[in-house]
Amino acid sequence: MHRVRFCDPAGSVRTGEWTDEGIVFDGRTYAPESVEILPPCEPTKVVCVGRNYAKHAAETNSEIPDRPLLFLKPPNALSAHGDTVPLPAGKERVEHEAELAVVIGEQCRNVPEEEAMEYVAGFTCLDDVSNRDDQRIERNWVRGKAFDNSCPIGPVLATPEEVPEDARISLRVNGETRQDSTLSRFIFTVPELIAEITSYMTLEAGDVVSTGTPEGVAPLSDGDRVEVDIEGIRTLEHTVRRD
Amino acid sequence: MHRVRFCDPAGSVRTGEWTDEGIVFDGRTYAPESVEILPPCEPTKVVCVGRNYAKHAAETNSEIPDRPLLFLKPPNALSAHGDTVPLPAGKERVEHEAELAVVIGEQCRNVPEEEAMEYVAGFTCLDDVSNRDDQRIERNWVRGKAFDNSCPIGPVLATPEEVPEDARISLRVNGETRQDSTLSRFIFTVPELIAEITSYMTLEAGDVVSTGTPEGVAPLSDGDRVEVDIEGIRTLEHTVRRD
Repeated sequence: MHRVRFCDPAGSVRTGEWTDEGIVFDGRTYAPESVEILPPCEPTKVVCVGRNYAKHAAETNSEIPDRPLLFLKPPNALSAHGDTVPLPAGKERVEHEAELAVVIGEQCRNVPEEEAMEYVAGFTCLDDVSNRDDQRIERNWVRGKAFDNSCPIGPVLATPEEVPEDARISLRVNGETRQDSTLSRFIFTVPELIAEITSYMTLEAGDVVSTGTPEGVAPLSDGDRVEVDIEGIRTLEHTVRRD
Repeated sequence: MHRVRFCDPAGSVRTGEWTDEGIVFDGRTYAPESVEILPPCEPTKVVCVGRNYAKHAAETNSEIPDRPLLFLKPPNALSAHGDTVPLPAGKERVEHEAELAVVIGEQCRNVPEEEAMEYVAGFTCLDDVSNRDDQRIERNWVRGKAFDNSCPIGPVLATPEEVPEDARISLRVNGETRQDSTLSRFIFTVPELIAEITSYMTLEAGDVVSTGTPEGVAPLSDGDRVEVDIEGIRTLEHTVRRD
């Protein structure tokens, strides 16, 4: 089942199901283009993971970490399916990063790995848009990763059973494939990430753990159309704009 | 005026005024110890600043930055006046950091320095409790700074006019002064910080900008009682517990 949050033509926020016929809520079926798709959850924080695929660590000349490299995106970073992300002003190199995002279903703390999936509401697609100009020179990646709309996410929340463990993850810019890997290449698995993060902090219902990006990250330009594709989840699309 | 958020004996969340007579709301006066004091705001994020006093940069063998060093604390980090902060398990060195916290009054983005104070609801006290074991070895200070309850804040929101530009800021542990400086020693001023942060991200009403700590940071032990004192603001008190 693909759950989708959307704003209907009357301005009400709904959670429906995105089927082959359209988006269904309360017996009505909406054409997807007739509604405003919203992020599939309302996180208090997005906990992101860096260098969780060996080939991406290599392409950035970074070591493979011996525990997850964590960083944060606050709620101002969110964008939805169909949105146009304004690239931060005056920055030369802003890149895409396709990621599997894990949406938490219930408040949790100190979760053992073997119970971690019980706290997962579902999976969705995420683009960790990254401003390299600042990221490479700052201690904490705040200007680099936490700027407004740097976190397009969605469009649907898929149940974990719909996404195979070796699901293909890919990203296209203007139709051309730039990233192409599989979730089987994670260095740290989803349960390992949830166990590590919740040993330090509470995750709330709606919070997001993003699992890192595979190799192939590359710069975005004004007008680019980005698609993040993960097997079992509907494609996330957004464009970018340089002001 | 000292505004205070509290939970009254019936369980309702109120915003009252903390006067010499007690906490006043709707014509009733409550003894402060008869209510539960809450954080004075409900931030979507706390944007913190590192190394904003030259002597603190020196005591950590760090350079004075040429622009604000930013990092983030998410909502799970909040604690209130009177709370007991559990120190993160298994960490040797967890330290206090007294800070002036700026509470934002209205959503804002791209704020010029000369208009920044128009978006400030008030000032309060904050202790940026820091887990040095992890902070010194991780790229982004997430385990080090974003763990649960690492951000005691309060107890009141003071209007900016009540806090002199050269207000004394001090911190005591079990009655002994450990940090003692003045806000006139900021490297970056409050308007400079708001201008820089909002050039990258939107600040929401209730969000917090914390302005960094002066020299004198030192380890906390089980049972310690911490007081953060800033001239013009009521004293923030909390204890710590090692599980």
